[in-house]
Amino acid sequence: MTETLTHPTTSLAVGDDVADLLFRAARTTSQWTDAPVSDEQLAAAWDLAKFGPTAMNTLPLRVLVVRSTEAKARLVAHMGDGNKPKVEAAPVSLVLAADPAFHQHLDTLFPAYPGMKDQLEPAADVREQMARNNALIQAGYVIVGLRAAGLAAGPMNGMDFDGVDGEFFASSGWKSFLVINVGHADGEGSPYPRGPRLSFDQVAEVL
Amino acid sequence: MTETLTHPTTSLAVGDDVADLLFRAARTTSQWTDAPVSDEQLAAAWDLAKFGPTAMNTLPLRVLVVRSTEAKARLVAHMGDGNKPKVEAAPVSLVLAADPAFHQHLDTLFPAYPGMKDQLEPAADVREQMARNNALIQAGYVIVGLRAAGLAAGPMNGMDFDGVDGEFFASSGWKSFLVINVGHADGEGSPYPRGPRLSFDQVAEVL
Repeated sequence: MTETLTHPTTSLAVGDDVADLLFRAARTTSQWTDAPVSDEQLAAAWDLAKFGPTAMNTLPLRVLVVRSTEAKARLVAHMGDGNKPKVEAAPVSLVLAADPAFHQHLDTLFPAYPGMKDQLEPAADVREQMARNNALIQAGYVIVGLRAAGLAAGPMNGMDFDGVDGEFFASSGWKSFLVINVGHADGEGSPYPRGPRLSFDQVAEVL
Repeated sequence: MTETLTHPTTSLAVGDDVADLLFRAARTTSQWTDAPVSDEQLAAAWDLAKFGPTAMNTLPLRVLVVRSTEAKARLVAHMGDGNKPKVEAAPVSLVLAADPAFHQHLDTLFPAYPGMKDQLEPAADVREQMARNNALIQAGYVIVGLRAAGLAAGPMNGMDFDGVDGEFFASSGWKSFLVINVGHADGEGSPYPRGPRLSFDQVAEVL
């Protein structure tokens, strides 16, 4: 945490408390309190994340909320061994998926280009790629949105995605790409120290 | 904006001002003031976004900061016609890219699994897919991070990605996937009304 506390924050438009809550102090959580997570809390997180921009306002992200013991067992069966106990321990697990049929909503979501829905209808490969790209960006919004709603997030991708899709999305055609465990962090929420990060100088080139 | 103002926000852990700044009132910006954007401001945004979780702490996102007139012209040449004037008008444009050579940093970033770097070295296809997936999620963090640093973001993907990669990333091997114009919004920052969004009930299924 030292680098958090010593980094200058004069340029920020949010307070240190917010910067810590959403980014600097937030951890990939695997240790939870007993406090439950309501659908209303998840909806509150969504009602922030939904405003994040997507290409042509396509909003292709879909969310399966895995809450019941029975549904948890169905999901656990398709998780990697190391992630099975994490799903079992979490108050609720979200399966994030991309909907290749997102274009069904475009007449409403993107009225600026009437006919886009019909144009995309035969282009299944294009739709699948668009759905995945934009749903992945939306996953970033969701993780920050959960934290802004007072929840902790534990994203994981060690799982059999095809198995999950067959288990839950055979009729909808949604394509899973991430599981996020959600709850309230017990302490820091992780038994591990935070990993280091790459600095701006390490990731950026200025022309 | 009506839905913003009438939606209950009792569950949030941040104030309405923060929720508006980061999500509810933020727009995909294409109209800018003359206020410049410094590298320090971009670094401040990165110093939030970098803390967002990625698989195995891989942090594959890379950023080309396109600021000079000459660099802008090189980028504009590869943008779709509708996006050329948007790049020209923005104080600075960021090319977001995924680095398939992210594994070079893993000994530092993910010391829990020594040898992961060597294991991934021959798996170029796996690395490219991992880089793209995680960099897309990081793009979500960056867009929120820019707003938290007091900047406005205008993401776009209508462009010739292969052309951009050849122009800028022939030696690094970075793979572009998004351009984000950055600056300070003039008014709302967009000439268009905000598009509608899908509600939690429309995107979520609870089991």
